[in-house]
Amino acid sequence: MPLPVPVFSSYGSLTEPTGIDLLMEDLGRAFNNDPQMRMLGGGNPAAIPSVQALWRRRMAELLEDGDSFDRMMVQYDPPGGNPAFLRAMAGLLQQEFGWPITPEHLAITPGGQTAFFHLFNLLAGAGRDGGPARRVLLPIVPEYIGYAAQGLHRSFFVATPPVIEDSPDQNRFRYRIPFDRLPWSEPIGAVCLSRPTNPTGNVVSDSDLGHLIDLTRERGVPLLVDNAYGLPFPGAVFTEAKPLWDEHVILVLSLSKLGLPGTRTGIVVARPEIASAMRRITSVSALANNNVGQTMVLPMIQSGEILKLAKHTIGPFYRDASARAQGWLDEAMRGAGVDYRVHHSDGAFFLWLWLRDLRITTWEFYQRLKERKVLVVPGRFFSFGLDEPWDHPDQCLRISFSQPEQVVREGMRIIAEEAARLSKPRAIPAGNLP
Amino acid sequence: MPLPVPVFSSYGSLTEPTGIDLLMEDLGRAFNNDPQMRMLGGGNPAAIPSVQALWRRRMAELLEDGDSFDRMMVQYDPPGGNPAFLRAMAGLLQQEFGWPITPEHLAITPGGQTAFFHLFNLLAGAGRDGGPARRVLLPIVPEYIGYAAQGLHRSFFVATPPVIEDSPDQNRFRYRIPFDRLPWSEPIGAVCLSRPTNPTGNVVSDSDLGHLIDLTRERGVPLLVDNAYGLPFPGAVFTEAKPLWDEHVILVLSLSKLGLPGTRTGIVVARPEIASAMRRITSVSALANNNVGQTMVLPMIQSGEILKLAKHTIGPFYRDASARAQGWLDEAMRGAGVDYRVHHSDGAFFLWLWLRDLRITTWEFYQRLKERKVLVVPGRFFSFGLDEPWDHPDQCLRISFSQPEQVVREGMRIIAEEAARLSKPRAIPAGNLP
Repeated sequence: MPLPVPVFSSYGSLTEPTGIDLLMEDLGRAFNNDPQMRMLGGGNPAAIPSVQALWRRRMAELLEDGDSFDRMMVQYDPPGGNPAFLRAMAGLLQQEFGWPITPEHLAITPGGQTAFFHLFNLLAGAGRDGGPARRVLLPIVPEYIGYAAQGLHRSFFVATPPVIEDSPDQNRFRYRIPFDRLPWSEPIGAVCLSRPTNPTGNVVSDSDLGHLIDLTRERGVPLLVDNAYGLPFPGAVFTEAKPLWDEHVILVLSLSKLGLPGTRTGIVVARPEIASAMRRITSVSALANNNVGQTMVLPMIQSGEILKLAKHTIGPFYRDASARAQGWLDEAMRGAGVDYRVHHSDGAFFLWLWLRDLRITTWEFYQRLKERKVLVVPGRFFSFGLDEPWDHPDQCLRISFSQPEQVVREGMRIIAEEAARLSKPRAIPAGNLP
Repeated sequence: MPLPVPVFSSYGSLTEPTGIDLLMEDLGRAFNNDPQMRMLGGGNPAAIPSVQALWRRRMAELLEDGDSFDRMMVQYDPPGGNPAFLRAMAGLLQQEFGWPITPEHLAITPGGQTAFFHLFNLLAGAGRDGGPARRVLLPIVPEYIGYAAQGLHRSFFVATPPVIEDSPDQNRFRYRIPFDRLPWSEPIGAVCLSRPTNPTGNVVSDSDLGHLIDLTRERGVPLLVDNAYGLPFPGAVFTEAKPLWDEHVILVLSLSKLGLPGTRTGIVVARPEIASAMRRITSVSALANNNVGQTMVLPMIQSGEILKLAKHTIGPFYRDASARAQGWLDEAMRGAGVDYRVHHSDGAFFLWLWLRDLRITTWEFYQRLKERKVLVVPGRFFSFGLDEPWDHPDQCLRISFSQPEQVVREGMRIIAEEAARLSKPRAIPAGNLP
């Protein structure tokens, strides 16, 4: 007699198939089993030769020293992170931005994604006071796919469609925060924004961010800023923008886009009460963090070299990659005669493509492309928290340009070919938005 | 005006100070800031020179290869783990034990502690059906400190005091599962046992484990077995015992006690429905695992060398360390004239000391010892899930013997001195249990 499958508790909501799950499984499977697949789907950073060489040299150094290597492998650090790393990180943020950050403002987590999982569920959801469950307000959607399933409570996120702003540049557009329509009437536990935004490559302007900081401060609501691609590192930002921090802002940095995603290292910068809560959550849920990422970058944080790496290597690498990728995409789309828009690429390493005339949803389009060995991410997975239906994301998809030229270029050619084949004929010539 | 501290949701229960938190903070702080502290508190594995040399050689190999190193750092694996690692691990378990394990039965987690955090909350707590919240039954307490605060629901664990069995060996005792008194009348979502047991060093016998497997199978309740110290690796088991697995058993292994705690790598072995649920939880809560641990041990899993390492190096190392540590403890305690018992040391790297005549609780004793630069863990933190008061754990403490001889020996001498100073005078000479 087969055993019955155990009944899951409400925590089982985390086991339901999700967009991020699909993305990661496809990504991982293709990397490991299907070398022909053109990986324009995942968030995997580029293999930048000089950066990889840097990490190889650093590891060789640790091995030469011996003790440092052994210590990294054989010792548990405190749950909040390595004390030397925390001191160095606090010093860097103080010096670079003048923020009053001490090690007490910091907590390391097993990757930025894990930081958000805990922060969201800590700040929103059902309270112990029996009041209405608080929600996480996303001031701009589409927003990062990885948040979508993280809430342990139903109707966890809340958002309204963004302002869609036409651009003076041909075939470009931009989303802006719909300040007039933000759903403040809901019970809000936190506000969250990725900057640069994954998936769109948007970098919300300093003045819009400042406005958001004021609005959240007034309401006593924490503002979470996901800095996975931002400043001071990894520095995949191509516009003038500066990071902002305040007592009620929770900034989350990551080592992943420095070429170290395999180490899973996130850094939470927050007022001490929040940082301390995160340290405790790590101790309960994970005992301690992995040490490898922190140990690898420690000397570069101590010396400030990490800022130069971000500014002179990683930033320009992705800026150039974005410019080239936009060129290829424009060329492919125009060549195929497809009506399209691309979100302004201010940072990160994605292009967000809008195909208004597609006869099918980009979810179906994604599957066609996969058959042609091109992996992208369909737009709908980045759209959540909306109480009203919104078709727009089903006309959009995310294309990563972090892979080598040939892969990106061929992928874009195939996307354009398929888009031409699957678009409605359009009487009005493609141009600015109607 | 200072900002109000955000109100935490019910998830905030994870942020309350706990035993594990205290342990990890003390441990980490002492390691990093107080080299004089004698670390008999933490679960840090020993630095076994030949094992550390092995990991250094392996890392050097990865660096020489270059590509393998880069891949480990720069690529996300699928959330369930590295496919090559999962294939090798399934093959190893099949061959060694004849279990029908495939890669579909496996899920990697960021450490064993994280596996239990998710498994507990998945299998117990409030259901979506509105029925009574299910609890995790601990068949034997004292049990691992790290579980205590993991439940997201109140009254998460349930247990009854164990059978305390006298030993023919002088100054030894043993806990046994109180089969007659297990609280099956409660709604039980899972049963969990660490084997070897942390903190006591107990290895529940094959026949008792078999009985527990039958009891849980009959009831359709998953049985979680924490194999952090067990077989086939790391192999810190000093008695005849074999691991058991069944469709309803969830075995959790870890790379930590192979000398790799800094990589945070746990391995869940479970029926595919559970393994798949764990993979999804990892994707949502952590995106992917760190790659370093899996990459480090991969060739040894593929070749089966890991079994030899466990059997011929790690097992004997801790067995000898335990024998020596028991000798030092007996010598120190007898020399100081203290009435004491030690739990039979069947595995792991702790001695569980029972001081019946102590005038203060071991929680107070712990603080005295800390002033004398000896860090142990007081017994009460390992006692949870009991609905009735039970004084016994306040007479006990956990002593780790994984540190170098001088540290362990001096620590034990100081423990004996303080115990003598703080014990009630006893008319009856120390001997067997009354």
